Amino acid sequence: MPQYPTRFAVAPSGFKESLSAPEAARAIAAGIHRVVPDAEVDLIPLVDGGEGTAEALAEAAGGRLLHRTATGPVGAPVPTHFALLPDSTAVVEMAAVAGLALVPRTARDPGRTTTRGVGELITAALDAGATRVLVGCGDSGTSDGGAGALQALGARLLDAEGRELGPGGVELSRLARIDTAGLDPRLTRAGIKVACNPYNVLCGERGVARVFGPQKGASPERVEQLAAGLERWAEVLARDVAPGRCRLADLRLDAGTGASGGLGAGLAALGAELRPRFEVLLGRLDLDVRLARADLVVTAEGALDAQTPRGKVPAEVARRAKLSGRPVLALAGTLGEGHGQVPGVDACSGILPAPVGLAEALGRGAEFLTDATERALRMVLLGARLGPVAAAAAVVQTAGTQRPSTVR
Amino acid sequence: MPQYPTRFAVAPSGFKESLSAPEAARAIAAGIHRVVPDAEVDLIPLVDGGEGTAEALAEAAGGRLLHRTATGPVGAPVPTHFALLPDSTAVVEMAAVAGLALVPRTARDPGRTTTRGVGELITAALDAGATRVLVGCGDSGTSDGGAGALQALGARLLDAEGRELGPGGVELSRLARIDTAGLDPRLTRAGIKVACNPYNVLCGERGVARVFGPQKGASPERVEQLAAGLERWAEVLARDVAPGRCRLADLRLDAGTGASGGLGAGLAALGAELRPRFEVLLGRLDLDVRLARADLVVTAEGALDAQTPRGKVPAEVARRAKLSGRPVLALAGTLGEGHGQVPGVDACSGILPAPVGLAEALGRGAEFLTDATERALRMVLLGARLGPVAAAAAVVQTAGTQRPSTVR
Repeated sequence: MPQYPTRFAVAPSGFKESLSAPEAARAIAAGIHRVVPDAEVDLIPLVDGGEGTAEALAEAAGGRLLHRTATGPVGAPVPTHFALLPDSTAVVEMAAVAGLALVPRTARDPGRTTTRGVGELITAALDAGATRVLVGCGDSGTSDGGAGALQALGARLLDAEGRELGPGGVELSRLARIDTAGLDPRLTRAGIKVACNPYNVLCGERGVARVFGPQKGASPERVEQLAAGLERWAEVLARDVAPGRCRLADLRLDAGTGASGGLGAGLAALGAELRPRFEVLLGRLDLDVRLARADLVVTAEGALDAQTPRGKVPAEVARRAKLSGRPVLALAGTLGEGHGQVPGVDACSGILPAPVGLAEALGRGAEFLTDATERALRMVLLGARLGPVAAAAAVVQTAGTQRPSTVR
Repeated sequence: MPQYPTRFAVAPSGFKESLSAPEAARAIAAGIHRVVPDAEVDLIPLVDGGEGTAEALAEAAGGRLLHRTATGPVGAPVPTHFALLPDSTAVVEMAAVAGLALVPRTARDPGRTTTRGVGELITAALDAGATRVLVGCGDSGTSDGGAGALQALGARLLDAEGRELGPGGVELSRLARIDTAGLDPRLTRAGIKVACNPYNVLCGERGVARVFGPQKGASPERVEQLAAGLERWAEVLARDVAPGRCRLADLRLDAGTGASGGLGAGLAALGAELRPRFEVLLGRLDLDVRLARADLVVTAEGALDAQTPRGKVPAEVARRAKLSGRPVLALAGTLGEGHGQVPGVDACSGILPAPVGLAEALGRGAEFLTDATERALRMVLLGARLGPVAAAAAVVQTAGTQRPSTVR
């Protein structure tokens, strides 16, 4: 029996704007095979509700993709799609119609972008016969609290003079009332679930305006305008939409209300159920058992940073791997502040071989990831050659345990 | 007794335009101590004859630096220095007066840059009482074959009309003869040694014009002009300067003739002895014994690529570490083509955490190197935890041995 690691679980996320999760998994596997040609590699590409989710779930469940044109995040129509699964569940991936990748870099004003297309896709899914709708959140380019989606579903957002509001979160500061008379009646029958990051909340210091606004291109002034708009949104939603529909106690701060720039809150007000994304998305993958079988778990994401423990794929993989004490290696295109403190991740590495710009890094993602996997594995094997190293077992920590003082 | 690696030999080169070798060594040690606080770290910063050599040798031998102004590589005067050691040996570091870092990016034409300042510094060293001169090569911004240095030392380079040539290697195509009557007579008494990379030769397919010209900013056309100039230079040097002085059989292709854009050939024609740089520079460091004492050897350089095995620090460290079977980890700012094939290097890693431009990479070198060392060591310890892994010993190869088929 070989005494070097031969069984690998490869469970990456996609790399935003560069690699889908299946592409990332294949790139990692190629690097592993360069070092351990007889490795058994279990490919477990993971989606988090964002880019690629509809396609991945359609593929996993034997469903199909339906293509439509809908309103994009900056108002212009975009080609988009949703998945229809055999059990009549539609998967609406918000990133496919309102994702950050659909916002031109020159138009990145999260105060103006809209989720109208999400509402249009939900309507299209109901038209196509879906009886349940799963909305995947993540990679959004919007911060309108789902206002656009509600408008597309028939709600009227009115100012003090009774005029309909324009698109975007900043407009919501002028919101006087919401007229729900025109809401699609099918919404009350359809079970809508939203797969979202439970760490995201709509308002307050950890709310979407302050945490994600800057990432989406907002100036500090815009962030404050947006925060004010979303506060108003929560207030009017709670008064005019939520009664008799909403399951949440607090649209401002309940878990997931901030998903996809507040889309979570908007859909929750209509009665949608907000669910932790990994619970919904990983349920059918038998992930824990597959991780437990591996000598080494490799995960990856575009960026590893202080956000990672707040519900990102590598943190979830590491948490589950540690249920069976498996060592975890994480690879990332960008190692940001806090990348070394993800519980359960024993070692991590960047993938860039040289000073390169973002465009080149994105364009050569697969190559860089394969090469970096090879290098990382050679380091692991170098260490294996130094063993038996009883004390070093301490570096493979269970999430949350203290590090011993001699090895950290 | 602890069973994880505790004894480290840290033997890096400097990172060009970013970190001196001692700075690089300290940055690596800081990363090691983050992971193994009780590590014994032996700092062995290495110089290769290029940037930092004069200062490092002065520090090691208890000598002093003498500051002068001399002609820089593009003709303008630059502040520079040489070292005077207690045994009356002067160390003239060519990079300190004709290095690439002294050539403005907008003026990178290796057909025009000159080593005149090197000759001026040799004269200054003799004026200061030096009886022996050690010229350190490396990091040059010139490709003039040492023509400028010879002019500064009193040789007259004449065209067919008897007019003195201007600076740079391209001019040498017009060289008709060299008048040696004015050469400094002290040169014949002073023992001049040149510490150079023996892989560098003046002419031919692996000559300085073709291998280094493009790095120094030459267009393909310029490379050919330069190659022609240096061919002519070798011919006239051999006829007019070498007789009665030169120890070499072939100024075109002997080892080291191409050092620092051909400075090796120019000085060799005057009688200088070309010596492999590591033999000259590492002689007093007791390097082999210090590497043998380490559990893990860490080396580093600005770039790791196909040039590395051709006489660069990480390759020399790895070669010597393997004399005692020590595992070697190499870190680099840039991993170029061939970085994975350096004999004796068991694992390597880039140091960049994210897509960054060259300027940022250079400016944040110490921080990036410390962080990357930490990450690399965590990977090594992750591997150590996977041990005992008998078969993985195969990945720690003696230079030149075959890799087994199952682990590579």
